[in-house]
Amino acid sequence: MTHFVYYADLFGTAVFAVSGALAAGRLRMDPFGVSVLAAVTAIGGGTVRDTILGATPVFWIHDTNYIWVVLVTALLVMTLVRCPRRLSGMWFQLADAFGLALFTVIGAQKALSFGASPLIAVMMGVMTGVVGGMIRDLLCREVPLVLRKEIYATASIAGGILYTLSIQMGMAQIPAMVIAMAGALVIRVSAIYWHLSLPAFELNEPSKEE
Amino acid sequence: MTHFVYYADLFGTAVFAVSGALAAGRLRMDPFGVSVLAAVTAIGGGTVRDTILGATPVFWIHDTNYIWVVLVTALLVMTLVRCPRRLSGMWFQLADAFGLALFTVIGAQKALSFGASPLIAVMMGVMTGVVGGMIRDLLCREVPLVLRKEIYATASIAGGILYTLSIQMGMAQIPAMVIAMAGALVIRVSAIYWHLSLPAFELNEPSKEE
Amino acid sequence: MTHFVYYADLFGTAVFAVSGALAAGRLRMDPFGVSVLAAVTAIGGGTVRDTILGATPVFWIHDTNYIWVVLVTALLVMTLVRCPRRLSGMWFQLADAFGLALFTVIGAQKALSFGASPLIAVMMGVMTGVVGGMIRDLLCREVPLVLRKEIYATASIAGGILYTLSIQMGMAQIPAMVIAMAGALVIRVSAIYWHLSLPAFELNEPSKEE
Repeated sequence: MTHFVYYADLFGTAVFAVSGALAAGRLRMDPFGVSVLAAVTAIGGGTVRDTILGATPVFWIHDTNYIWVVLVTALLVMTLVRCPRRLSGMWFQLADAFGLALFTVIGAQKALSFGASPLIAVMMGVMTGVVGGMIRDLLCREVPLVLRKEIYATASIAGGILYTLSIQMGMAQIPAMVIAMAGALVIRVSAIYWHLSLPAFELNEPSKEE
Repeated sequence: MTHFVYYADLFGTAVFAVSGALAAGRLRMDPFGVSVLAAVTAIGGGTVRDTILGATPVFWIHDTNYIWVVLVTALLVMTLVRCPRRLSGMWFQLADAFGLALFTVIGAQKALSFGASPLIAVMMGVMTGVVGGMIRDLLCREVPLVLRKEIYATASIAGGILYTLSIQMGMAQIPAMVIAMAGALVIRVSAIYWHLSLPAFELNEPSKEE
Repeated sequence: MTHFVYYADLFGTAVFAVSGALAAGRLRMDPFGVSVLAAVTAIGGGTVRDTILGATPVFWIHDTNYIWVVLVTALLVMTLVRCPRRLSGMWFQLADAFGLALFTVIGAQKALSFGASPLIAVMMGVMTGVVGGMIRDLLCREVPLVLRKEIYATASIAGGILYTLSIQMGMAQIPAMVIAMAGALVIRVSAIYWHLSLPAFELNEPSKEE
């Protein structure tokens, strides 16, 4: 991984850790809970990906910088943030979209480097991007948001497909990353800006109340 | 795996995917959520089994047919199903029982082929059969049904024990599969037909309300 | 592992299995549910640890004594316990604190034997101690208690740090275990006795109700 991608990855880790720590604060967790929520949100997706690929020990065992970034972020959020409103603003959502796009591309890249097929590479990219947030929501006893409304996973899927296609067509890694991340970012930012969402699959089920 | 078992396995995957997609529809998830629920229900059990056994990359990384079956099934359910009542009928329950029996036997077989002891083989069979549904229920924020009432896991346990015992006694794989699946099916179908369930373990706990 | 540590580990497994079986009883689960809850509480932490470290097949595949202890404990709880009040008393909490301390040390030890860094060793110790209870709470549809109030994880963290530091400073395994477990036990028992808890991280969020 080039230096730039590596530091961008640590930045994405911090952004995702913030979103986990904020979720913990909403449920009034203690410092341990805040750290756990920050960690599962930030490194949960990559951990599940590595476990399924058999890339064990998982990535943060080798490189503990990811853990330090998570712990320092959790500490900063606990000491500095009182009113999370400001953090949910446009800048944070942009940073989160950047993290999603980058995690997707890094996940797809890792799967390809393990010899996975294009379909699996896209899946592993999306998994890296969204599974951490899903575990966060599960621990907060919520149906994962990503499964319900927003165009969030869709941006990740598009990024994963763009990256995998570009690599398959013989493009070098850096331009493929740039194209894929741009695609994912455009979709995600449009969805935030125009409040887009996919139509839900709804069942008419009279028996639901029983 | 013989051809017949392989296609039966894909059929069981599709049936489990339907039950995941329907659960997603009840919660009004978007197409991504429907696909995720279909996938965790259909391939979640085998994924956890392979991870615990160390059989990584897990089975669907090698053979993406399982993923295609899940995705096509999710798409078909979203476009064709409006009233899930018909799908919850006798035929679907029979197909689900068949999937449960087959997944159990395949899971036990895989564990034995990894040199696991008979106890572990039964556990891995049951895990393959029921863990996918448990993750589906967790994502839907429900206490997994299989832990509470129906004789569902019991059928799987019986199938796992029958298969493992038959193999231990020197029987060939195909007859052992037939016997074990027949046993599991008889138990599961009887439970559906006569509404059987195991007695619950209930605690008298005055302190529960505190 | 010396004989004494091994039997102590099985004892800790049984204690954790009791707490899982009691949680299942509160939700009126059937015998399968009781066994599953007992198992995830008792061996879930070590399973996640081994999976993340790549120490697969996980520990209870090699040594099925852990499974037998869980199953026999679940059976005993179902047949003998009617009023869980007595079991929640001081003696049980002491036994649980002992299990927590021992699991932490064993987890840290395993991580170090896999060449992990001190930070990872502490994390793996805490994971071994608390993740089983977290999965139990998830399956019961509760926000994991350990994330919210009690000084439970804190005791485990202290034990993990004490153990890892002692080993790093060249101490032999047995004295390091004794010191670390004593430290964890003192913290945990003090927390129980004086009802100590860490301050929660609370967000003032007017937007929470929307």
